[in-house]
Amino acid sequence: MLWNETIISRMLEIRYPIIQAPMAASTPPELVAAVSNAGGLGSLAVALMTPEQIKQNIRSVRKLTNKPFAVNLFVYEPEPIDIKMFNAATNAMLAHFPELESLMSQEIPKLISYEEQLEIILQEKVSIFSFTFGVLPSEWMEKLKTKNITIIGTATTVREAQVLEQSGVDAVVCQGAEAGGHRGSFLTDVMSSLVSTMVLTPQVVDAISIPVIASGGIMDGRGIAAALCLGASAAQMGTAFLTTDEAQIHPLYKEALMNPKEGTTLTRAFTGRYARSIRNRFINEMENNHTMIASYPYQRMITAVARKALKDEQLKDFMPLWAGEGSAACQAVPAQQLMKGLIEQVTTIFKRQR
Amino acid sequence: MLWNETIISRMLEIRYPIIQAPMAASTPPELVAAVSNAGGLGSLAVALMTPEQIKQNIRSVRKLTNKPFAVNLFVYEPEPIDIKMFNAATNAMLAHFPELESLMSQEIPKLISYEEQLEIILQEKVSIFSFTFGVLPSEWMEKLKTKNITIIGTATTVREAQVLEQSGVDAVVCQGAEAGGHRGSFLTDVMSSLVSTMVLTPQVVDAISIPVIASGGIMDGRGIAAALCLGASAAQMGTAFLTTDEAQIHPLYKEALMNPKEGTTLTRAFTGRYARSIRNRFINEMENNHTMIASYPYQRMITAVARKALKDEQLKDFMPLWAGEGSAACQAVPAQQLMKGLIEQVTTIFKRQR
Repeated sequence: MLWNETIISRMLEIRYPIIQAPMAASTPPELVAAVSNAGGLGSLAVALMTPEQIKQNIRSVRKLTNKPFAVNLFVYEPEPIDIKMFNAATNAMLAHFPELESLMSQEIPKLISYEEQLEIILQEKVSIFSFTFGVLPSEWMEKLKTKNITIIGTATTVREAQVLEQSGVDAVVCQGAEAGGHRGSFLTDVMSSLVSTMVLTPQVVDAISIPVIASGGIMDGRGIAAALCLGASAAQMGTAFLTTDEAQIHPLYKEALMNPKEGTTLTRAFTGRYARSIRNRFINEMENNHTMIASYPYQRMITAVARKALKDEQLKDFMPLWAGEGSAACQAVPAQQLMKGLIEQVTTIFKRQR
Repeated sequence: MLWNETIISRMLEIRYPIIQAPMAASTPPELVAAVSNAGGLGSLAVALMTPEQIKQNIRSVRKLTNKPFAVNLFVYEPEPIDIKMFNAATNAMLAHFPELESLMSQEIPKLISYEEQLEIILQEKVSIFSFTFGVLPSEWMEKLKTKNITIIGTATTVREAQVLEQSGVDAVVCQGAEAGGHRGSFLTDVMSSLVSTMVLTPQVVDAISIPVIASGGIMDGRGIAAALCLGASAAQMGTAFLTTDEAQIHPLYKEALMNPKEGTTLTRAFTGRYARSIRNRFINEMENNHTMIASYPYQRMITAVARKALKDEQLKDFMPLWAGEGSAACQAVPAQQLMKGLIEQVTTIFKRQR
């Protein structure tokens, strides 16, 4: 069997079982299309978009590729906003960073429910829908299945993978502890359930009967080959795609990824949910001062408002530098070139071994 | 090339690049010999032994196998004992666990230096010497090299691997964050430099030119195959060998490894150095109370004395349950059977991939 002909390649109708991870705010249509055009699966992360933006983004991808791609959402029920708590967390942050005060807005941004977002995704007839942060209610699962949409959930533990399988998803992304950005955890306490890709992947493969997509710490063809050996049917990579030309992230973020001065950490400081970021001043000071943090998504709203108006030199200290543990291996190249290199590397590795 | 014919297999003259990790107090000669006889490399961990015990143990292994095996030490300079600190840490522990009070001894155990231990290892003409916790001074490196002993150091970061290479070791064990027992870190703060096997292995492979042995979270043939894909020339496994018949660990420890009720954590509570253990009452209470902890090896002496006299039902709460993140995959089988299964699994994986 050729290494690339896995059950996931067949299910998703892609040539190579390499998936560009959904990364909210960092997956422009150009990136998604470039990965899909190169034979992998691009993922359009639309969690932070309005329904109208989602529609426009899906249409933009379609203009750039006729290959399959995934659209990804955060699926969760936010707690109702607690204005007192929101203001208290805002003030707690400003007490440490008075320079942000003039940038704050009195307006509280409107929440968009995943149902509004999913409605548009259904209307736009995407072929693959992936999600994180939870399990999709059965009525939505049925709507998606009626339209023959392939459904991919995200698990950070064996138990979450089993619950997702029972809910009827077609495949599970298994998110190792080293993954960048938000933890997808929805059944357990994040910090007490962290397990690495090397350990989690075979455990999940043994526990469920649907295909498993490994993610977390996979930075090159060696990591993809390792993921396939561990029993995964595909590898999902986020951080490695962040520095491609198409991702168009802030130059300071790109620099931090490729030449990290500090290690990564899991922090709630930026959004209220644990997410892996390279350490910077904001994280360190919020942690050292045990600053009050609002729950997700309210903490995200608080820090995003402050960030919007910052200048470059300040931004480095205040922006989330989402990154997996292996970001130092990032390359600043076009996504197609990255894909080509990955495919050649995996092919070479498996040719060498007997 | 056959998967098992790696640069490490040739260097160590073993048939399969599978190394049973040194685990102080849990590597009886029967285990070491069984692994070596099955074509892997057994490692006799002698860090906690007197020179006389080391001699006897090496001779016992030799009676059971004529194959190569490694002897492993902790290489570090202990701080001189601070009696006030020692007594304060003892009393701090006893304040939370008064049931241990009657078990304590007034006597402070004698420290054995690694030089005394290494002298015996040289005299016994072992062929492979591995170590952790530091870099071996050049005079010792030369003595070992004069006797044609293969030398293996242990790194937890790229920088440590580079320093070990410069010191003249023949190979480096690269210890991923998921590994059980003590962290081998010697240049950096443990908690801020944790990187998983999936990420650390390729980084170290790219940074040094001597062979790399991957360790941390490798529990079966899938993990070994993954380690080789990541660029390692061998896989080292500790936890997986702890439940073999030959390891003869306490039945309660075996039970905790195979059916973990709680996750693992890195703790200094047992020895004063960070080590990965399954959570139990001792760890939780020491952490929750922020109990004072003596430095290594004094905290180990304090807790070991208390432990010695405990009955089984108490022991579960008080013994270190050293374990990697993946212990749930442990099998209670003879070591030879474990080795046979691992070899067949890796062979099957690489036959399947092209």
